[in-house]
Amino acid sequence: MSIVSVGTMAIDFIETPYGRADAIVGGANPFICLAASYLAPQVNLVSVVGHDFPVEFLEMLEGRGINLDGLEQRPDGKSFSWTGRYHLDMNGRDTLATDLNVLATFNPVLPESYRHAEFVMLGNLEPGIQRSVVEQMASRPKLVVLDTMNFWMDVALDALRETIALADVLTINDEEARQLTGERSLRKAAIKILSGGLPYLVIKKGEHGALLFHKDEVFFAPAMPLEDVVDPTGAGDTFAGGFIGHIAATGDTSFENMKRALIVGSTMASFCVEQFGTAGLLHLTPEAIRTRRDQFEKLTSYTFNI
Amino acid sequence: MSIVSVGTMAIDFIETPYGRADAIVGGANPFICLAASYLAPQVNLVSVVGHDFPVEFLEMLEGRGINLDGLEQRPDGKSFSWTGRYHLDMNGRDTLATDLNVLATFNPVLPESYRHAEFVMLGNLEPGIQRSVVEQMASRPKLVVLDTMNFWMDVALDALRETIALADVLTINDEEARQLTGERSLRKAAIKILSGGLPYLVIKKGEHGALLFHKDEVFFAPAMPLEDVVDPTGAGDTFAGGFIGHIAATGDTSFENMKRALIVGSTMASFCVEQFGTAGLLHLTPEAIRTRRDQFEKLTSYTFNI
Repeated sequence: MSIVSVGTMAIDFIETPYGRADAIVGGANPFICLAASYLAPQVNLVSVVGHDFPVEFLEMLEGRGINLDGLEQRPDGKSFSWTGRYHLDMNGRDTLATDLNVLATFNPVLPESYRHAEFVMLGNLEPGIQRSVVEQMASRPKLVVLDTMNFWMDVALDALRETIALADVLTINDEEARQLTGERSLRKAAIKILSGGLPYLVIKKGEHGALLFHKDEVFFAPAMPLEDVVDPTGAGDTFAGGFIGHIAATGDTSFENMKRALIVGSTMASFCVEQFGTAGLLHLTPEAIRTRRDQFEKLTSYTFNI
Repeated sequence: MSIVSVGTMAIDFIETPYGRADAIVGGANPFICLAASYLAPQVNLVSVVGHDFPVEFLEMLEGRGINLDGLEQRPDGKSFSWTGRYHLDMNGRDTLATDLNVLATFNPVLPESYRHAEFVMLGNLEPGIQRSVVEQMASRPKLVVLDTMNFWMDVALDALRETIALADVLTINDEEARQLTGERSLRKAAIKILSGGLPYLVIKKGEHGALLFHKDEVFFAPAMPLEDVVDPTGAGDTFAGGFIGHIAATGDTSFENMKRALIVGSTMASFCVEQFGTAGLLHLTPEAIRTRRDQFEKLTSYTFNI
């Protein structure tokens, strides 16, 4: 079943303790769509780029079967760009520059062929734009996954709440869950957020894994303890792409299958952080993904039934 | 099978965002021994207290079957005391006062009846004192678990390395693993520490769970996402007590059983943090422990074999 994914596409300049990478492809959607493309039959991308966005990267996406009919290419503008530097301990980062460029006037129009997709991934964007994508769908999708960030909680909280009301799954990080609710305890934060009617909440904790909350249930997926985390950029988007990719591949939106989707998301994210930008997602194989997924199973498996 | 546990016993003054508790029992050994007492047949305590240590608490420990023959009670001195305040986010804490008192001249002498125990728990103490306990055992114990902290890495690194050489399992937190090795990656830190000949390494990550490393293997036990973490004091000691308690109860020192011991340790720690000091460990039942352990199993269980 097919996915529509809306999100930014950017030119990034990144410095981490492992080195620096200049003018590499970033933004949410390359990570989401690449991760999902290894799992789901059809991924339909919605985004905007300027004249400076590398054509070879777009060709590579098409080569991976990703539909670019929903990509707006503006010959008269520059692509959205982000420059950031990670701290020595990789736990924090400073944004040195954000140039919205063509993103400032992005107003996505879904191609007719996209409007019947069953799964919608709303990558981090202004909440009104995210909502407009859902509203352009021919019918209510089977599942809408919404990613957002603290910035929109600061400047557009009401709009964000309207968009959350349209979503089935919200993915935010631990600090954002605390900011949204004023609760230090993630369990209490989750109870508060779900009480608003949202069916599923995913709280991402970066190198500490991710939690899935649904009614009274909670599931935890660890992050893989890796020897080298070279660049955390895009890990959350890759996680989201793997998550919705698994659900679209199986067509199963049950809580039991969302647990598996969380593991698949963590699996894909573990490949992402091992290299700069999207490099870790370009040459995966079903075997490599399966092997890593098996490592995740081994990481938490035990039994008292002996 | 029986455990010998050496560690501090203290009078604590604690402030957390949930409130404050003055002059409550703390130190490593009350947490270790209480947790282990729910699991292992025989727990033998080694420690020192002054005239101000509450007799009712000692009677309660005896009531739980904990052997106090190795407890030195000094009528002419005051007990070790710690005063601390946790930060609003509970992730950090400030030590406001540490009064060693009788601990300053603690030189444990093991009762004859202790010297044949199969399991030895070395709670956080000066590494030379920890070593002297192992050296007093009649024969090499089946398993020696060593807990320590960054302070000893700062002031007694050589002595600490000698004590690590006597241990089967080292339990330290993530920042201590980084300090000991100079590696940011916990996986790399573990490889470095195990390369010195230590068979098992446990890295405690507080609210983010714990990792067990052995040869090329790694296992992860999550922490339970609780609604209220009232006081994290003693959580690591409770974890260690549950860990060695499970191993002593089963007599099984295999990697597979250590995974289960990690889950039991996390289970016991989850009770500890729900109340101030040792309060959460005083009235547990086998049923309550089993129910919580089942919640841990549910927290990470999934299967792709459908």
